[in-house]
Amino acid sequence: MKVACNGKDLCDAVTRVIKAVPARSTNAVLEGIKLTADDGTLTLTATDIELSIEHMIVAEVAERGETVVPGKLFGDFVKKLSSQTIVLTANGSRLKIDYERSEGEFGCYTADQYPEVNRIEDTQHFEMRNADLKDLVNKVAFSVCTDDTHAALKGVLLEVSSADVTAVSTDGYRLSKCVKPIIATTASTSFTVPVRAIMEISRLLSDGDDTVKLYMHKNFLMVRVDATTVTTRLIDGTFVNYRQIIPQHFDTQVYIPKTLFDDAIDRAVLMSRSDKNNYLVRFDITQSNMTVSSHSEAGNVEENLPIKTDGADISISFNARYFSEFLNCMNCDTIVLNLTNATSVCVVSPVGDREDYIYLVLPVRSA
Amino acid sequence: MKVACNGKDLCDAVTRVIKAVPARSTNAVLEGIKLTADDGTLTLTATDIELSIEHMIVAEVAERGETVVPGKLFGDFVKKLSSQTIVLTANGSRLKIDYERSEGEFGCYTADQYPEVNRIEDTQHFEMRNADLKDLVNKVAFSVCTDDTHAALKGVLLEVSSADVTAVSTDGYRLSKCVKPIIATTASTSFTVPVRAIMEISRLLSDGDDTVKLYMHKNFLMVRVDATTVTTRLIDGTFVNYRQIIPQHFDTQVYIPKTLFDDAIDRAVLMSRSDKNNYLVRFDITQSNMTVSSHSEAGNVEENLPIKTDGADISISFNARYFSEFLNCMNCDTIVLNLTNATSVCVVSPVGDREDYIYLVLPVRSA
Repeated sequence: MKVACNGKDLCDAVTRVIKAVPARSTNAVLEGIKLTADDGTLTLTATDIELSIEHMIVAEVAERGETVVPGKLFGDFVKKLSSQTIVLTANGSRLKIDYERSEGEFGCYTADQYPEVNRIEDTQHFEMRNADLKDLVNKVAFSVCTDDTHAALKGVLLEVSSADVTAVSTDGYRLSKCVKPIIATTASTSFTVPVRAIMEISRLLSDGDDTVKLYMHKNFLMVRVDATTVTTRLIDGTFVNYRQIIPQHFDTQVYIPKTLFDDAIDRAVLMSRSDKNNYLVRFDITQSNMTVSSHSEAGNVEENLPIKTDGADISISFNARYFSEFLNCMNCDTIVLNLTNATSVCVVSPVGDREDYIYLVLPVRSA
Repeated sequence: MKVACNGKDLCDAVTRVIKAVPARSTNAVLEGIKLTADDGTLTLTATDIELSIEHMIVAEVAERGETVVPGKLFGDFVKKLSSQTIVLTANGSRLKIDYERSEGEFGCYTADQYPEVNRIEDTQHFEMRNADLKDLVNKVAFSVCTDDTHAALKGVLLEVSSADVTAVSTDGYRLSKCVKPIIATTASTSFTVPVRAIMEISRLLSDGDDTVKLYMHKNFLMVRVDATTVTTRLIDGTFVNYRQIIPQHFDTQVYIPKTLFDDAIDRAVLMSRSDKNNYLVRFDITQSNMTVSSHSEAGNVEENLPIKTDGADISISFNARYFSEFLNCMNCDTIVLNLTNATSVCVVSPVGDREDYIYLVLPVRSA
């Protein structure tokens, strides 16, 4: 392999694909980035087996070929080169890198040691607006299960119908559900995408009115944006039947100013973090006031928020972090809590957005 | 103690003093911040015994007194309050904090458990321009010894004479020396300031033409800038006799473009970091070219820099990090290396700045 390319392009390409390089792997070759020179292009590929990212740049190819360079070292080295022309020459287990009057040389792996990255046929796909997909990911990714014992919940369920896509995530204690319109789909389908992959896809997307196509094939999902391709293995196993969990009727609705709620929860998280009570926060709700209180050995906090309540007074306790993570993702003036009693699930939404997004939280039985 | 103050002022005060709070201490009260309400002011004090920082804000004092709050928790809590009025009420081992319609409460220590912060008499002092002190600290702090077995070298030696101050630091392998003019002094003196303290003092200083007075009393140094006072214990023990280390005669001078040198060293650090050779970089110097090369198991780098040499060709090896740290602090176009042979100390300076600043580095005997 011998190829000349622009240093800035190469640096940009490394930055994009390196996110798929596993920090540590028992298989050292996976800590590498594969370089493939072919037909006027240089393609960089990184994968942790589950997630793959490819990025293609324009290059002057003197000799086709491929090699695998140590990802982190190559990335750090390339970042230190300015936008001059760089010539990469692979020769067995060495890669030579020439720039200006100087040269570097890396030990590398041969490409046949690198795993095959799954290619997806251009078959099933659905299309939606970038902004809708980004908002969807923002609103559900935070409540994905992080526990290895529930592998089927370590991603976001996407249910694609003819008109919209429903995204759901849950860790067993809370659940987010967000519905967004789609532009078109070749089929109604549902599958679970690993949370890391869907977040990488979301980061790729530009703002504005662009749209994105998500391709599905066997147990893979693929998205191509400009010169970057992200492919991910889907999660096996059955997602929980979330529909039967979501209550349809509530006794009390509580309307809370979002900013004040956010500040009060932040301070409750601080005060309760040292405690064995595990971030316990208590809401005492009357017709026009909600007291948000938290107690620990370090100290106590008691905040009074002006609210509007439809229904009976109620006292209920939660894990404060579950609210803090939810509020961080919201961009609205008012939050509504839908409650039944101190032991039933609470359904939270941004006001005026009910159909689009709901967040369920289980209360904590306080001592 | 009962005192009302502005939330933003309080938050700013905590941010300033918390730098003196030790991250971990066997004496838990040192992880606190002392609050002292007196005569229309609230003073916050933090200390790790060696370094103390005090900051005073305007306050409405309803009842004088003092207490010690948990530093990190109080700081995080106050940061979450907006610029409203905050009322602090200490009562035995509790501090109540009222804001808007809400309140928090912390467990705290009584002030008599907190160490006495040393007060300095307004006696000996010297005065210099802020810009000179900041530049001085920037140019010598990086080469201070970090090794506990050389306690006397864990700071910056300041030698104050009638016209200027000489700052010196060394870790045994390299030495920085910087001379700056002073405006006035009450005495010629010399002492060693812990590096953390002198860096905190430097950070306090505004840019521009302001000047700063440094007060010395017994084994303490004190600086007051606006409402903030930094006091530090000085380092006992004798600093090395650095004058006899600095060679006065050299055989070869090498003039190197700073930016190219910096980039080459950066890449040499990257390539050599994985190696048992400990960041070894080799300079092969001829009349108009310097080859900067580094070799490790991970790979090799060989950079050619256009230089100008006065004197004989020479090859010499160094720890690349010693150059990278030095170059990070320099703001100039050209660096000059003064060399004698491959085993003698190298004296480096920014060109045109020779009298003001020199940096000595010991070479490494390469294999």
